[in-house]
Amino acid sequence: MDITDWRKKIDEIDRRLVELLSERARAAQEIGRLKRHTSLPIYEPDREGTVFENVRRVNQGPLPDRELTRIYERIMDVMRNIQKEEITPPAEAAKTLTELDSEME
Amino acid sequence: MDITDWRKKIDEIDRRLVELLSERARAAQEIGRLKRHTSLPIYEPDREGTVFENVRRVNQGPLPDRELTRIYERIMDVMRNIQKEEITPPAEAAKTLTELDSEME
Repeated sequence: MDITDWRKKIDEIDRRLVELLSERARAAQEIGRLKRHTSLPIYEPDREGTVFENVRRVNQGPLPDRELTRIYERIMDVMRNIQKEEITPPAEAAKTLTELDSEME
Repeated sequence: MDITDWRKKIDEIDRRLVELLSERARAAQEIGRLKRHTSLPIYEPDREGTVFENVRRVNQGPLPDRELTRIYERIMDVMRNIQKEEITPPAEAAKTLTELDSEME
């Protein structure tokens, strides 16, 4: 296989990665919706710790745990943003601000 | 589905994500090995641009392109490190340093 062949393989892997990341984001949104009606915070260090442990446990290389963790730190940061939007949807957040404005007038 | 069920689903998605990221890393290593015998640099902005375009084209949400790009920036950064190690394996880099030391004695 030459470089072009490997790149075609990478493009195919990326398509599957985007699908999985989207699936993960949908699950984060669902959890966000459930959290809207509970007192659970968006940031739960214990749960995030479990995610990192799970990821390292299944890692068989060639990525060193350190590098895989760096990717996951970014994934978790993005998922937290997605979840935050579900807990306070932008439209609702805007409404709250408008209400605040009226109160201040 | 309650939060526990969604988290089980996420753990399963994460296992598949780690497998795909590992597969992508192996492909990056193969490209690194091929680059060892060519003059191609590790950082190729045109190729990275193609990767980002590919990823955004297949994205159907719910992740906004901006957030997906943030995840991919980290993935590309890690893959560049992996490739760099293939082009100059740590053992070889150490040997080169030892040779330099001898020359300097």
